[in-house]
Amino acid sequence: MSGPEGGSSLSRPAEPRHPAHTTLVDNIGLLVTHDADRPERSGAALLIENGVVAWVGDAGDAPAADERIDAHGGCVIPGFVDSHSHIVFAGDRADEFEARMAGRRYEAGGIRRTVRLTRDATDEQLLANATRLVAQARAQGTTTIEIKSGYGLTVADEQRSVRLAATLTPEVTFLGAHVVPEGVDRDAYVDLVVGEMLDACAPHSKWIDVFCETGAFTVDESRRILEAGIARGLGARVHAGQLGESGGVQLAIELAAASVDHCTFLSAADVEALASSTTVATLLPGVEFSTKQPYPDARRLLDAGAHVALSTDCNPGSSFTNSMPLCIALAVREMGMTPYEALRAATEGGAAALRRADVGHLRVGARADLAILDAPTYVHLAYRPGVPLVRQVLSGVAGP
Amino acid sequence: MSGPEGGSSLSRPAEPRHPAHTTLVDNIGLLVTHDADRPERSGAALLIENGVVAWVGDAGDAPAADERIDAHGGCVIPGFVDSHSHIVFAGDRADEFEARMAGRRYEAGGIRRTVRLTRDATDEQLLANATRLVAQARAQGTTTIEIKSGYGLTVADEQRSVRLAATLTPEVTFLGAHVVPEGVDRDAYVDLVVGEMLDACAPHSKWIDVFCETGAFTVDESRRILEAGIARGLGARVHAGQLGESGGVQLAIELAAASVDHCTFLSAADVEALASSTTVATLLPGVEFSTKQPYPDARRLLDAGAHVALSTDCNPGSSFTNSMPLCIALAVREMGMTPYEALRAATEGGAAALRRADVGHLRVGARADLAILDAPTYVHLAYRPGVPLVRQVLSGVAGP
Repeated sequence: MSGPEGGSSLSRPAEPRHPAHTTLVDNIGLLVTHDADRPERSGAALLIENGVVAWVGDAGDAPAADERIDAHGGCVIPGFVDSHSHIVFAGDRADEFEARMAGRRYEAGGIRRTVRLTRDATDEQLLANATRLVAQARAQGTTTIEIKSGYGLTVADEQRSVRLAATLTPEVTFLGAHVVPEGVDRDAYVDLVVGEMLDACAPHSKWIDVFCETGAFTVDESRRILEAGIARGLGARVHAGQLGESGGVQLAIELAAASVDHCTFLSAADVEALASSTTVATLLPGVEFSTKQPYPDARRLLDAGAHVALSTDCNPGSSFTNSMPLCIALAVREMGMTPYEALRAATEGGAAALRRADVGHLRVGARADLAILDAPTYVHLAYRPGVPLVRQVLSGVAGP
Repeated sequence: MSGPEGGSSLSRPAEPRHPAHTTLVDNIGLLVTHDADRPERSGAALLIENGVVAWVGDAGDAPAADERIDAHGGCVIPGFVDSHSHIVFAGDRADEFEARMAGRRYEAGGIRRTVRLTRDATDEQLLANATRLVAQARAQGTTTIEIKSGYGLTVADEQRSVRLAATLTPEVTFLGAHVVPEGVDRDAYVDLVVGEMLDACAPHSKWIDVFCETGAFTVDESRRILEAGIARGLGARVHAGQLGESGGVQLAIELAAASVDHCTFLSAADVEALASSTTVATLLPGVEFSTKQPYPDARRLLDAGAHVALSTDCNPGSSFTNSMPLCIALAVREMGMTPYEALRAATEGGAAALRRADVGHLRVGARADLAILDAPTYVHLAYRPGVPLVRQVLSGVAGP
């Protein structure tokens, strides 16, 4: 466990310490555990033992501990689980952002510009940039982050991306199928992705992902790529429904993908299928902010009974924010979520999108990944948009 | 001058130091001065002498200095001038915010709830809350802040508010005419505001303001109140056009008010009148974010030639953000401003709304109030919404 100035590597298990080291977090204004019966409680304290939540109860009943952390009356929430980011890249596309704000439409082809810059960068440059972005995310409360490749698009460059990402998080996603690179035949490229590139990347990855969208990959190409990854033991995730309705959502469900991400454009059948599946609909409002597209309708998904996550999609093209609090504020302002639904989607929802049961909540047994807010309630994350309200971040370590 | 951990009192002149103390800010990625011929420049450095900008030029030509501040390649901008805040208050209205997000309409009457809580608070509680909010604003780049009364609404409580505000900023606004307090006859209240209350508050204030809106004060009442303040030597400012078109905009111009604030609803005649006046139209997008109203049309005002400022309106009811970067991001996303126009409105525009020529820019002679960003250009304030990008804040002191 470390304070806000601690290491920037997220979700890395460490060796358990012996004897047990205990930390009591108290003087908590409001504690959010996501316990089914009592998701939030006042007057509570939380005991951490070797980086794992060992006890939650009324502050007056708190056991003795080796160390005490004073929440100063602030709200304590599970650390954010940002289940969708693309932070292994080089370069900046502020000019494209500015042009979009002046009316130009977002197109997936901008990805190729980052590909050129990423290929030209050294390992050290890529890792320094990603490390800086992870540290910045952590200071904003993110304690688990997924990182995708997808700006390499050659065997060597994709492998480098997943290898570097794996030094920062265990949640590494191989996204060779981000776009077809310039000057490459698309059938030959799909062959490469499912062949030599997958061979090179799978050992460093936990997930495989495809951008299934007009301008990127078709449903059939996406199926072939995802099935190849699944055959190698990777979990499936899909980008779909960003620019229009497509068969990508149904494909994700068909393949039992952990998550289908964007879901800005969904048919009624898509919503119904999501509601009766375990595939999480991950919504990325930073994208709509930065592309001036309409925001996804979270209310429709929640009312249908679908699982919903919120994530940043941090990348230099369509969403260069890594602020989960901003995503929560936008979800509440623009997407019909209540503050609690948005918080839950940004924590337990993200964990479900990564098939993780150990993070995203603070029930007994969870990793003690948490954020202490400079606010009495998590509602302030939306009520006070843009204000840096995360005062302290703790990251637990995996228990024995 | 002090670093980010320095005192939280903004814009307080200090005694000049002898002999002159010089500081060179260099390794600047992009320097924004708002110079008419060259508003932004690369490869520049900036020399501060006793808290005032003494020289701007190419880094290679920089003079020697006693001290050096390394901008680490970041963009250097004038500190934000937040010309509209209501931060002397007690209590929290997160529940009202949540109800609005679920569909309830914003009504000015919510102010009365904060009035009750503010009256019940001690001086120490009010000052601690306001001091915390000023420090939080400063950490986000705000180096000049205006603070209004308006949650006291008795002679003693309003006087207390302006007295406490004056310990934090010279830009203090008497807003006894915020709403008519509960159980008080409105004519009697207007008499009180222009009489005993003004007598008690004017010595601590620089400005007088009125909430000229349905549910608050009529145009005739507003005129009487503003004229009484002007007669006491206070400058005029007006709240108008938040909930609908009203005569408040024209009244502000008629009285040569420094600023008319909100301007969400404007008639064509209002826009034309603003364009041919020196009254600044101050836009407060945090309000529209938090009340789900449509955003003001900044483009229409700029195209007409009006002076535009951006401000937070930080208050516990309609806009509890004190993030000028968020206001910039919303202005770019929602209000038709370019990133440069939004930055300028948040700096030099705010200064114009306070009739201040010494802040809001970094031309030679300005106070050295500046923010160093963790970004190569100010465009990132909109391109990276929600991310805390202000790395360091310097506040100049008034020169001899």
